Amino acid sequence: MADGRLERQFAFLAEADSLKTVLRRSPLNDGSRSENSAEHSWHLAVTALVLAEYAAPNVNVPHALALIAIHDLVEIDAGDTFAYDATAQATRVFRERSAAERVFGVLPTDQTPQLRALWEEFEDGATPEARFANAVDRLQPLLQDIHAGGGTCRNQTRFEVLQRMAPVETALPRVWPAVLEAIDAFSAAGVLRPSA
Amino acid sequence: MADGRLERQFAFLAEADSLKTVLRRSPLNDGSRSENSAEHSWHLAVTALVLAEYAAPNVNVPHALALIAIHDLVEIDAGDTFAYDATAQATRVFRERSAAERVFGVLPTDQTPQLRALWEEFEDGATPEARFANAVDRLQPLLQDIHAGGGTCRNQTRFEVLQRMAPVETALPRVWPAVLEAIDAFSAAGVLRPSA
Repeated sequence: MADGRLERQFAFLAEADSLKTVLRRSPLNDGSRSENSAEHSWHLAVTALVLAEYAAPNVNVPHALALIAIHDLVEIDAGDTFAYDATAQATRVFRERSAAERVFGVLPTDQTPQLRALWEEFEDGATPEARFANAVDRLQPLLQDIHAGGGTCRNQTRFEVLQRMAPVETALPRVWPAVLEAIDAFSAAGVLRPSA
Repeated sequence: MADGRLERQFAFLAEADSLKTVLRRSPLNDGSRSENSAEHSWHLAVTALVLAEYAAPNVNVPHALALIAIHDLVEIDAGDTFAYDATAQATRVFRERSAAERVFGVLPTDQTPQLRALWEEFEDGATPEARFANAVDRLQPLLQDIHAGGGTCRNQTRFEVLQRMAPVETALPRVWPAVLEAIDAFSAAGVLRPSA
């Protein structure tokens, strides 16, 4: 390819393909296999579009779609870190920052900071779009868990699940009652681990 | 769930999950399995962000991300229609319109036309964003085919591949030489079927 710039962009897109093989703990709704991080990212985009009406009025939903498309790319190197694995979560930021260095570094030099900025924005959670995207990223696995009759919530405490879902309360307050209802149903069904 | 509106939105999101089980003809770059339409849709979003600089100046890339997120949802019912299967392509529009009726109909009544409009816009290809999204939807499988040493292009004629890729020439003219280069390489390697 004569154009080195396009070659680097295509190389980045080939790297991105690997996210389709990064498995998460959530099963598909049909229980056939684990969800991967690429299809999870797509499902978040659809969730964001469907639940846009519950976002704060200052949320630019299309910009949130850009954050969502990029938010898990670092998992190509860092793998998916299970939400309720406190030990792995403790090293997540360090591992994902190293991954970001390499993965976004595949792009043409001037484009590296542009795409990395979308990932940083999602991680920092400081903009309305990042808060909305983070809430969607917490809610979608819960919806999968409901279909799985517990899923990733199984054997977590009520406190741990509430803490994990907190971004939904902040960014999608009108959806929060449905989250509480699901957690109550998990409690009633013995899915959650009693607190010490 | 007390709120019937949110219940219908969650039901739609559960329907969307099925797109993760709709298989395409393209293999993943590592050759381990076929790509599914959900992760393909995500890969298009990343491709759109990376190649945004080649889009016409009037393309609103974030809006294109919304079109991309929705564009294959009808495949939940209609399945993926192989690009080079002329017989299946002949019935695709009819099958996908029936699918759109049912799938978008799962949403709350007022939201059905909103999300369906995104799909219609992509299909009609009349807006700058739809032309850009369609070009990305043609280009990404070609990039996968390059990694597969032929992939879905194998045993197609040069004319058929050029015809399939034509939206790239229109919407991403500066990327078009790389497409021609890939097709030439396929010709040289005997991947393509000689024309009658």
